[in-house]
Amino acid sequence: MTGIRQLANHLQLSIGTVSRALNGKADVNAKTRERVLEAAVELGYVPNQSGRSLRKGTTSTVGLILTQGNSLGENNDNFFFGVIHGLQTALKRHKLDLVLLLCSRDEDPDSFLQRMVAQRIVDAVILTATRTHDERFEILRRANMPFVTLGRSDSLGDASWIDLDFEGIARASVRRLCGRGHKRIAVAVPNVDANLGPLFLEGYRQGLEDCGLPFDEAIVFRAETSEEGGYDVAGKVLETADRPTAILLIAELMSVGLYRRLGEAGLLPGRDLAVIAERESPVGRFLLPRLTCFRLDLDALGRMLGEMLLSNLPAFAESYQDVPKGKVWPLELVEGESDPPLFA
Amino acid sequence: MTGIRQLANHLQLSIGTVSRALNGKADVNAKTRERVLEAAVELGYVPNQSGRSLRKGTTSTVGLILTQGNSLGENNDNFFFGVIHGLQTALKRHKLDLVLLLCSRDEDPDSFLQRMVAQRIVDAVILTATRTHDERFEILRRANMPFVTLGRSDSLGDASWIDLDFEGIARASVRRLCGRGHKRIAVAVPNVDANLGPLFLEGYRQGLEDCGLPFDEAIVFRAETSEEGGYDVAGKVLETADRPTAILLIAELMSVGLYRRLGEAGLLPGRDLAVIAERESPVGRFLLPRLTCFRLDLDALGRMLGEMLLSNLPAFAESYQDVPKGKVWPLELVEGESDPPLFA
Repeated sequence: MTGIRQLANHLQLSIGTVSRALNGKADVNAKTRERVLEAAVELGYVPNQSGRSLRKGTTSTVGLILTQGNSLGENNDNFFFGVIHGLQTALKRHKLDLVLLLCSRDEDPDSFLQRMVAQRIVDAVILTATRTHDERFEILRRANMPFVTLGRSDSLGDASWIDLDFEGIARASVRRLCGRGHKRIAVAVPNVDANLGPLFLEGYRQGLEDCGLPFDEAIVFRAETSEEGGYDVAGKVLETADRPTAILLIAELMSVGLYRRLGEAGLLPGRDLAVIAERESPVGRFLLPRLTCFRLDLDALGRMLGEMLLSNLPAFAESYQDVPKGKVWPLELVEGESDPPLFA
Repeated sequence: MTGIRQLANHLQLSIGTVSRALNGKADVNAKTRERVLEAAVELGYVPNQSGRSLRKGTTSTVGLILTQGNSLGENNDNFFFGVIHGLQTALKRHKLDLVLLLCSRDEDPDSFLQRMVAQRIVDAVILTATRTHDERFEILRRANMPFVTLGRSDSLGDASWIDLDFEGIARASVRRLCGRGHKRIAVAVPNVDANLGPLFLEGYRQGLEDCGLPFDEAIVFRAETSEEGGYDVAGKVLETADRPTAILLIAELMSVGLYRRLGEAGLLPGRDLAVIAERESPVGRFLLPRLTCFRLDLDALGRMLGEMLLSNLPAFAESYQDVPKGKVWPLELVEGESDPPLFA
């Protein structure tokens, strides 16, 4: 098999140039890249990931684990795409590649991770969709595989993590709604074991307490974090004795179904039920009325997540000593049209 | 470094059992798996992807290439999640893993692919977001990397492909709308170079011809295939002299923005502008009125895509001789509430 040295000799180019050409770097001109690739085929050079892997003892690849069959992951397309862009920015500095590993809906997330770890497709992983008690932390520790997590968990231990400020936005939402005249405020949280549910509820409780409003389990709704979940929640709100005048939704997609269900009942979102949802998204921006929600800088979050991971990799840790060990990520309110004052 | 043989000897288990335990197979009981993983850590066994790679000369990993910064890819979350499930089903039969490779929005899709190929992170790839003229086919051919594509292109050559029946659904939509009394039917297609645009337009033309309706370039709208794109298209529809009474949308997310823009103008989707969109999705199902659209079996499509790829891999080709070389994937109309008869 022709190696990179033979290829460089044949082309009378430096190994560095050939390597950069093979790796599609921008600092190699198009003509040179063309020459290198043609010669590679001609001489039977097989750019070999295995060679690279053995030499460094690593794959130079980081895996982001996404979990399907969990509407929290599945419906968060633009969330993950945003985060991934920032992640790649951080990882690219050190020529690390990012791959997404998808745990399909008929596989257990723990066994899936175990399989990925055993096969060493990647050198390090980023966990998402953390559960309050989550076995995966232990699996990674046992395998000595570096990792960071997007989401908190009781199983965190000394792992590095970033999580959205779920308590903060729930609390701020209740206070905002109360300030606008609402005294009976419902909340919708996930019906699956996801650590963000209890956090969101805790902020909701604090907000009620701040406003001197009672907590009523009857208007805490647990549902799928999807359009359908929102539709179901709206149905239940309509059936509630002493109907709430406002609701907080943990996921913006829920608002699509909620809007429809209100419409079917001849009610208008906003006017007849004030709505605040967790996160700004294109769908929420184009609903009528536009959703009041919370915005965050996904790209910056992704970059910090990447840097946190780098601070956990021996080869790069030194450059990332300033990166925090854990971070509650702030979100900022975006005023929409879905939560007007009660008696406007 | 401790290899799998030493590990098996130490545990007095067969190499097969140890391998299955390390790979998280269900047929190894939990206690044995525990023992194997503990011993692996104790003896310093590093399950080594490189070893595996060298032995077979492969990585046993297949990459699905997704392109960001292209609203067609970015907004098609539930589309890709559905396809991926089927893909994994087919690939798992042969212990091939699927990873997603994301071309970020500031990277050129051609250089991205070139980089992935040069680094041999995967043995084979699945292309998506094909352009009418697409350099990537040539890149893969030059590198001798097996591939299949989700989407057609003029650059296909002898590559295996699956694509949705864009001509068919556009044609059927025009005929349906005409049958419901519409004589002036607009269409919205992507404003980027994506091969599905011309296909959709061709079906639209054929439908008009079938119905004896004239083609009018003034009501062919090119826009981003997103909520915002739909909002813009609706704005243009409202400004059109001799306003269309119906519209076909190439992407269902466009309907969210279109509904909002009509609402802002005091108009009702369905009653004031009939709408048919390409593909069934949760958002469309919960819009009011519910979208009329087209459904396909994503899981079956993903499985066939996987089988097509297997038929292109020398190690597995023999078992997949019956898999077609190309396939126009059928879609079925799902009646919604967004395209009632014109004078109902």
